[in-house]
Amino acid sequence: MKRVLLTLSYDGTDYHGWQIQPNGVTVQQVLSNSLEKLLGVKTAVTGCSRTDAGVHAKEFCCHADCGDNIPPSAFLKGLNALLPQDIAVTGYKEVPPDFHARYDAKGKTYVYRILTGGRKDPFLSRYVWQIERELDVGKMNEFCKKIVGTHDFSAFSSSKRSVTDTVRTVSECHVEKKGDMISLYITANGFLYNMVRIIVGTAVWVSDGSIAPESTGEIFESKNRDKAGITAPAKGLVLEKVFY
Amino acid sequence: MKRVLLTLSYDGTDYHGWQIQPNGVTVQQVLSNSLEKLLGVKTAVTGCSRTDAGVHAKEFCCHADCGDNIPPSAFLKGLNALLPQDIAVTGYKEVPPDFHARYDAKGKTYVYRILTGGRKDPFLSRYVWQIERELDVGKMNEFCKKIVGTHDFSAFSSSKRSVTDTVRTVSECHVEKKGDMISLYITANGFLYNMVRIIVGTAVWVSDGSIAPESTGEIFESKNRDKAGITAPAKGLVLEKVFY
Repeated sequence: MKRVLLTLSYDGTDYHGWQIQPNGVTVQQVLSNSLEKLLGVKTAVTGCSRTDAGVHAKEFCCHADCGDNIPPSAFLKGLNALLPQDIAVTGYKEVPPDFHARYDAKGKTYVYRILTGGRKDPFLSRYVWQIERELDVGKMNEFCKKIVGTHDFSAFSSSKRSVTDTVRTVSECHVEKKGDMISLYITANGFLYNMVRIIVGTAVWVSDGSIAPESTGEIFESKNRDKAGITAPAKGLVLEKVFY
Repeated sequence: MKRVLLTLSYDGTDYHGWQIQPNGVTVQQVLSNSLEKLLGVKTAVTGCSRTDAGVHAKEFCCHADCGDNIPPSAFLKGLNALLPQDIAVTGYKEVPPDFHARYDAKGKTYVYRILTGGRKDPFLSRYVWQIERELDVGKMNEFCKKIVGTHDFSAFSSSKRSVTDTVRTVSECHVEKKGDMISLYITANGFLYNMVRIIVGTAVWVSDGSIAPESTGEIFESKNRDKAGITAPAKGLVLEKVFY
């Protein structure tokens, strides 16, 4: 037996997120089934995080214990041939037997994309939140600066969360605009349930003037989900990078 | 009644091409239904060409006769709201009553994309032909040069074609490589059934050494479909521009 760290890339549109669940196809289930076909034995995979239904990953990491002697390049080729077109395995690395894809992750970067001004783009529709109006990048960045740091993110998390420790450290949070596309980049040592999507929804409310950037501190202190903005749609969100 | 020229953009993955047909959903059918909902009367649309099942369009043109008094911007907004996410109307222009989207088209540009070297990319899989091996861009361009000009393209067309005049003038045909992505650009005054896809398939055979670029003349003269290469998959093809 050896423990391997697999790197994936997937279009989450047609999946009920990463985590196996009774209703709906998930990436974890599909990957586990393909590994079973490749290796001939049931093989569990442990992911670096849950991702919501419809969320995408440019880089997602998971570990699995495999007893095969297949060379890495053949392993990748075989697994990719078994996986559907919307999931690719891009990396394979042997790791120590006590390595854990979730607990050893030091941080992650997410990117959220918003297509503004009402343009409809059939080639981007699966990957962006389309908004009719223009957004105020300056105001959004004022808010983003206040998100950076160590805070209790309870107010920026779905009440459905299962964890009790709600303090996280955000090391980077900013917005960039290229033409009519706005991208919010955020890096943290960990994320609560729906945290990025609520931060994005709040940034949009700040842009609209419904929330003042200065009141971000009060929102943190309130620990009240209702004080923050809406939860942005899943499809604009991409897990960009996992740090170990 | 006024005749309008509508410009569309669509992801063709889930459509049986442009043209209405008894089995399968087509772009023409969906657009016609949405126009009927918008205008309250059955409204026929005439396209600039047929596109095959699975082929995409960055710019596709069609005309329709409409009796409405809706301002163009509201017309576009309303129609886009009624159309599914994978079809967008991007332009609206009133044209003379004898204008014809197909017969008045002076030319079209198509782009065909090939992802080489075996990389699997879930975000591109709907829009590229994935090929394991590397391709020889120099050889492909030697072949492309011989495609430029006025020729009888019978050998580069499906025998299922319905037209009798098989002479077309190609004004541009070349291949570009960026990283592991190869794009073939082709502009002509008209295209026969499957013509771009057979030219792409032949360019790949030329790269592989199965066909010598110098034998392109013989292929034209043979007028025999079997002398050319395979028909490349539909999903790599995009109608890029229509000229009037």
